[in-house]
Amino acid sequence: MDNRELVDRLLAGERRALARVLTRVEDGSEERLREIVALLHPHTGKAQMVGITGSPGVGKSTLTSALIGHWRSEGKTVAVLAVDPSSPFSGGALLGDRVRMQDHVMDAGVYVRSMASRGHLGGLSWATPQALLVLDAAGFDVVIVETVGVGQAEVEIASIADTTIVALAPGMGDAIQAAKAGILEVADVFCVNKADRDGADRTARELRDMQQLGHGDWLAPICKTVAATGVGIAELAEAVQEHASWLESSGARERRHVDRARLQVREIALGTIRRRFHEVEGGDLVDALSRRVAQRELDPYTAADQLLASLDT
Amino acid sequence: MDNRELVDRLLAGERRALARVLTRVEDGSEERLREIVALLHPHTGKAQMVGITGSPGVGKSTLTSALIGHWRSEGKTVAVLAVDPSSPFSGGALLGDRVRMQDHVMDAGVYVRSMASRGHLGGLSWATPQALLVLDAAGFDVVIVETVGVGQAEVEIASIADTTIVALAPGMGDAIQAAKAGILEVADVFCVNKADRDGADRTARELRDMQQLGHGDWLAPICKTVAATGVGIAELAEAVQEHASWLESSGARERRHVDRARLQVREIALGTIRRRFHEVEGGDLVDALSRRVAQRELDPYTAADQLLASLDT
Repeated sequence: MDNRELVDRLLAGERRALARVLTRVEDGSEERLREIVALLHPHTGKAQMVGITGSPGVGKSTLTSALIGHWRSEGKTVAVLAVDPSSPFSGGALLGDRVRMQDHVMDAGVYVRSMASRGHLGGLSWATPQALLVLDAAGFDVVIVETVGVGQAEVEIASIADTTIVALAPGMGDAIQAAKAGILEVADVFCVNKADRDGADRTARELRDMQQLGHGDWLAPICKTVAATGVGIAELAEAVQEHASWLESSGARERRHVDRARLQVREIALGTIRRRFHEVEGGDLVDALSRRVAQRELDPYTAADQLLASLDT
Repeated sequence: MDNRELVDRLLAGERRALARVLTRVEDGSEERLREIVALLHPHTGKAQMVGITGSPGVGKSTLTSALIGHWRSEGKTVAVLAVDPSSPFSGGALLGDRVRMQDHVMDAGVYVRSMASRGHLGGLSWATPQALLVLDAAGFDVVIVETVGVGQAEVEIASIADTTIVALAPGMGDAIQAAKAGILEVADVFCVNKADRDGADRTARELRDMQQLGHGDWLAPICKTVAATGVGIAELAEAVQEHASWLESSGARERRHVDRARLQVREIALGTIRRRFHEVEGGDLVDALSRRVAQRELDPYTAADQLLASLDT
C-alpha cells in the first residue's frame, strides 16, 4: 500500500493503518519518512501532548495506566508512546510484565506503542517527534510520551510536550538525583508516586525547596499519588488540565509548539548529516581518518576539519 | 597560564594542572579545546581504559572503589571519569554520599573526576572522549569511565573502552532490562554485584542464556562480586586482565583504538555543525523555520532542507 493510501486510512481512524504508519516511521527509509510526514503534518497540532518522565522504578507505567483510565472515564481517547528501555510497554518478547496495560487492551479508545530510544545510526531517537506527529494526526485527544528521566535525549523529548509530569518516588534521594540529572527543570507538574511509602512528605518538601521560579509565571504543583490504587490520580489529571489552561491563556502553548518544531527540524537536519557521514565515500574517509588518529599521526580536531571539508564539497 | 605551559605541567605529573586542563576541556572554548587536544594527543594511547556501566542501584561506584583498591595494591595508578548523573562521584554540593571514595581521597595515585552527561548545547557529552584523552596523557596506568547504562550516548562511551564491565544486581529482571537497553552487547566482562542477595545465581544464569557469540572469539565471563566487602574483586580484576591480554594477542585492541578515534572525530564534527546551527544567522533561520512548521505552513523535512542548504553556502 502506498503512503498516501495508508495515511488516508489512518486519518479515517483505522488502527491497523496507524500501526503500519508508525512502523514505516520507525524503520522506513528517509524518502518514505519524508513523504509520510509531509502528508500528515497539516493534520497535526490538535492533540494534548503529555510527557511523563522519571527514573526507573518510580512507577511511570502504573501512573500512565491510571491516567489513561481517568481520561477514558471523561470520554477522551488516549495514545501512549513509550520511549523507555525499562518500560513494560517496550517489552515485546523479552518481558511478560504487560499486566498493567491489560485493563486497556480491549479498549479501542486507547493505543499503546513502544519505541526504541536508539536511532538507526546509534544516534538519538530522532524518530520520536515524528511518531508523536503520527499519533497526533490519528486524532487522539491526549498523547502521552513516557520517557525514562536519564539521558538528555529523553528529557528533551519530554520537555517538548505541552505538559510534562516529572514522577518521583519517596526515598533514595530521588529528588536530589532528579535535580542532578536536570529533569526538575522540565517539570510542569510534579508527581510523588508511591506516596503511601515512608518519606513521601520529605520528597515533596525537598522538591519544594529545590523548585526554581522557572517556566514564566507557572509554579509546578506537587501532587501525591498511589497510582496502583488510583489515589490522587484525579488531582494529578486536574493539575495537568490547569497547566493546559495556563498554557492557552498565557500564549505559552504556541511557544512550545515552536520548540517542538525546532527539535524536529534540528534532528532531521542532524540525521541527514549523520547519514552523509556514513555514505560510501564519507565512510571510507572516516575510516582512514580514524586510523590515522588512532596511530597518533593526526589529532581528532584536524581529522574532523578534513571530514567536514569533504562534506561541504 | 597558556595551554602549552599547562599541558607541560600536566605531562610532568602536576595534579593541579590536570584539574585545570579538564576544566578547560569541559567548559572552554572551541579553540582552547582544539589546542589542548592537539598538544596532548601524541602522548596518549598508553592507559588501559576500563568502562563500567550499569543501571542506577547496581553498585557501580562501590565496584569502582573496590577495583581502585585492587589496582592500587598492585602499584598501578588509577583515574576515574564518572559520567553518570546518579553517581555519588558526580555529587558536588547536592550530595553527601562521597563516603566510599574517602578511602582513596588522600592517595596521590588515584584521581577522580565527574563530568556532566550533557554537552554545552544540550547534545551528547562529546567532551567525554576528550577528557579520557587528558587522563590518558596524564600517565595513569588505568583509566576507568563509569557510565549509567541508560541512553545510547553513555553506552557508546563505555563501548569504546578497552574493556567494558557491565554491572548488574540480582532481582528486578535486571538482566532483561539490560538486554532491552542494549548494554549487554557492549560487555567484555559481566559483573553480578550484590551477589550475597537472593537471585544472584538466577541473574548469572539469565545472562548466560542471553549471551550472544559476539566480540569475535571472546565470550564475556560472568563474575560475581560483593563490592562492599571486596568479595570477588580479585577475580573481576583478573577477568579484566585476561580480556586485555586477549585484546593484545588478537589485534582487537588496535581496532578499538580506531573505534575510539572514530567516535571522537564524529562527535567533534557533529559539534561543529551544531554550533553552526546556533550561529546568529542560522539561529534566526531556525527560529523562522520552526515558527512556520508550528503553524503548519511548512513540513519539518522541507524546513530541514532549507536549513542545510543555508549551511552549505
